[in-house]
Amino acid sequence: MLVPGSVIGILGGGQLGRMIALAAAELGLKTHVLCPDKDSPAFQVSAHHICAAYDDRDALDRFAAAVDVVTYEFENVPLSTAEFLVARVPLKPGAKALAVTQDRLLEKTFVRDLSIETAPFAAVDDLAGLERAVAALGLPAVLKTRRFGYDGKGQVMIRPGDDLTAAWHALGRQSAILEGFVAFEREVSVVAARRGDGAFSAFDVTENVHREHILHTSTVPAALTAETAKRARIIARTIGDALDYEGVFAVELFVVGRGAGERVVVNEIAPRVHNSGHWTQDGAVTSQFEQHVRAIAGWPLGEVSRIGRAQMTNLIGADVHDWHALLAEPGAHVHLYGKDEARAGRKMGHVVRVKRDPDVCANIPEEGC
Amino acid sequence: MLVPGSVIGILGGGQLGRMIALAAAELGLKTHVLCPDKDSPAFQVSAHHICAAYDDRDALDRFAAAVDVVTYEFENVPLSTAEFLVARVPLKPGAKALAVTQDRLLEKTFVRDLSIETAPFAAVDDLAGLERAVAALGLPAVLKTRRFGYDGKGQVMIRPGDDLTAAWHALGRQSAILEGFVAFEREVSVVAARRGDGAFSAFDVTENVHREHILHTSTVPAALTAETAKRARIIARTIGDALDYEGVFAVELFVVGRGAGERVVVNEIAPRVHNSGHWTQDGAVTSQFEQHVRAIAGWPLGEVSRIGRAQMTNLIGADVHDWHALLAEPGAHVHLYGKDEARAGRKMGHVVRVKRDPDVCANIPEEGC
Repeated sequence: MLVPGSVIGILGGGQLGRMIALAAAELGLKTHVLCPDKDSPAFQVSAHHICAAYDDRDALDRFAAAVDVVTYEFENVPLSTAEFLVARVPLKPGAKALAVTQDRLLEKTFVRDLSIETAPFAAVDDLAGLERAVAALGLPAVLKTRRFGYDGKGQVMIRPGDDLTAAWHALGRQSAILEGFVAFEREVSVVAARRGDGAFSAFDVTENVHREHILHTSTVPAALTAETAKRARIIARTIGDALDYEGVFAVELFVVGRGAGERVVVNEIAPRVHNSGHWTQDGAVTSQFEQHVRAIAGWPLGEVSRIGRAQMTNLIGADVHDWHALLAEPGAHVHLYGKDEARAGRKMGHVVRVKRDPDVCANIPEEGC
Repeated sequence: MLVPGSVIGILGGGQLGRMIALAAAELGLKTHVLCPDKDSPAFQVSAHHICAAYDDRDALDRFAAAVDVVTYEFENVPLSTAEFLVARVPLKPGAKALAVTQDRLLEKTFVRDLSIETAPFAAVDDLAGLERAVAALGLPAVLKTRRFGYDGKGQVMIRPGDDLTAAWHALGRQSAILEGFVAFEREVSVVAARRGDGAFSAFDVTENVHREHILHTSTVPAALTAETAKRARIIARTIGDALDYEGVFAVELFVVGRGAGERVVVNEIAPRVHNSGHWTQDGAVTSQFEQHVRAIAGWPLGEVSRIGRAQMTNLIGADVHDWHALLAEPGAHVHLYGKDEARAGRKMGHVVRVKRDPDVCANIPEEGC
C-alpha cells in the first residue's frame, strides 16, 4: 500500500495521464511522467518528467528508480517495456492486462472463454483467410488490425459486394481480425475499478454516442433495463477478476435487442481510465481518476454514486474554440487539456453538464453534517 | 482576457497556490510558481517554478517574463515586490488590496470608512498609547501587530487586571492595534469573486469554528437569518468594489445578537482564496480555486450554487495520520497537500463531507441533459 507522498509513475503524457496526475495531487501523491512527446499535456502538471521513447532502457531505468508504482494511460505500451519495468517496480495494471488488450484477437478470445458474448469474429492472416472469414461471418463486417488501433484507426468496413483484395490491402496486409456486424440498439460502457485484493466497484453504466469513430457524448444513466445494467457490471467484474486487474478499466458493450430481449455484447476492453468515464469528474462522488489512483495505491475505493444526471461532451478539434461560450454556460464544467494545436479529430477537452435527478436526491442520506 | 494556454504566475507555493495551480490546469492554463521554500507543495504540480526570495529582483524579472498574469496565495507579499511586478505584468488582485489588508489598522479604517461596522479599534504605537486605547475600549481586548499576523500569531489577549507593560513587550513593542472584544454568537465568512469589470459572485455564507486560533471546520449553510446573509454578501461586494478587486477574496465576520437583533461585524479581509472556502471544491458547482482563476483570467464567473450541505474539516498536524480511515469513509472527500512533516499546527490537508439538502434538491433544474 502506498503512503501519501509516494510517487506514481505514469507512462504516457496525454490528457488521461494529465488527469491522473491532477487526481493524484489532490490525494497528496507525487507524479512522474514518461512520454516521448515533448509537448505532453501531463508534463505541465507534474514537477518531474522524462521525455524519452518507451524503449529507451536508460530512461526507463531512471524512471523506475524515481517512482513507487508505475501505471499507464494507454494500452499500447510495448510489452517489452512493461516487462522491463515489472522487474524493477510494481506495474499496475499488470502486464497481463496489456498483453490481452493489445491484441484484438486475444482479447475477443479471452472474453469468449469467460462465456461472455462478443461480436462473432475470426482470425485473418492472409487474403485466403479473409475470404474464409467472410464466408463464415457474412457481410457487413469490419476488418481490423490485431494491434495498435484506436478511435477507428486500423479498421476497414466491408460491405456486401466490396472487393476483399482491396480491403486486405487497405489494412496493410497485416495480421487481422474480422468482426461480424452487430445490429446494436446503443453503445454503453462500464467504467470500473478493481484492487489487487479483489475489491471491485463500478460506476453507473454510461451510454455513448460516437461521431466519425470518436466518442462524442457519454450520458448517465444509460437507457437500459435494471437487469441489463446489472449484467453489464457482472461482466466487468468477471473480466477484471480474470485479468487480476488493478486500477480502473472500461468495458465497451453493444446493447442488442429490446425490452425482455435486451442483452449486452462485449465490444472492447480498455485497461485504463476511459473517455466515457470523464462525466464522473463532476457527476459522481469520486472521479474515475481518483478511483484509479486509489485502486493502484491499494487504498479504499471511493464512493461511486452519481450526484445527478450527467452528460459529457468531447471537444474535438475546432470545438474547443467555443471555450468562452462554454465557460459562460451556467453549471457547465469545462475541462481543457492544455494542447496548443486544435487539429481535426484531436481531443482538446470536454464539458460535463449535471442536472437534477430526483432518484439521486431521494437516495442521498439526509442527516446533517 | 487570457486565452487557454496562458501562464498564471503564482507568488507563494503553499497549499493555496497548489490548489490554484490544479484548478488552472483543469481549465487548460499553465502555471509558474515563485516561492523561497524549496519544499513548496505547489512546486509538485507545476512544470515550472523558481525557488527564490520575494525580493530577489533577478528572479522576479525572469518570473514576470515567463507569465501572462501574476496572482498570490498570501497577503504578505512585500509591497516592493508587488510594485516591481506591476511594472512588468498584470498583478491580480492588485497592489491596493495588498496595501490595505497587510496592515490591520489600515484595513479596519478602510472598512469603517465604507460605513461598515468593525470591532472597536485604536492605534497603539507605544506603551502610553496602549494605556489610552485600553481606557477607551475597555477590557478584554486583543493587542495585535499591525502587520504579518495570521492564525493567531502576532496577537496577545489582554484581560481585566493583566499587566499592560507585559503585553506590550510580549508583542515585541511594534506598531500595533488594540481591538475591543466582540461578544459574537458565531464566526462566518463570505468567499466572493470579483472581476475587473465589476462582475461579482459570492458563495453561500460559511460558518467557521476555530481551535487554538486555527480554522477547524467550515459549514454551509451558516445558521443565519436570510437578511443577515444578504447583508454579509452586500458587505463583501462593497469591499470588493472599493478595492477594485480582481479574484477571489474572503471577508471574515462576527455575528452579533440574535433573531431580529442579529447583525454582522467585519473582522478581517483576506485578499486571496481562503481556507473557509475549501468546501466549494466538493460542495459547490464551481470551486473557489476555479472561480479565482476565472476572475483573474477575465473569464465568466462560475455557478456558485451548493450541491448539498457541506462541512470542511481541516487536518492539522497529526490529524493527517487518519488519512486511511478518512479515505475509507463513504463520500468523504480527502485533500492532502503533499507536505512531508506533520508538525503541530501545520495545515496538512482537509476533508469535505457533503450531505443531502432538500432545499438544494428542490432548486436544481429538472430538465434532462
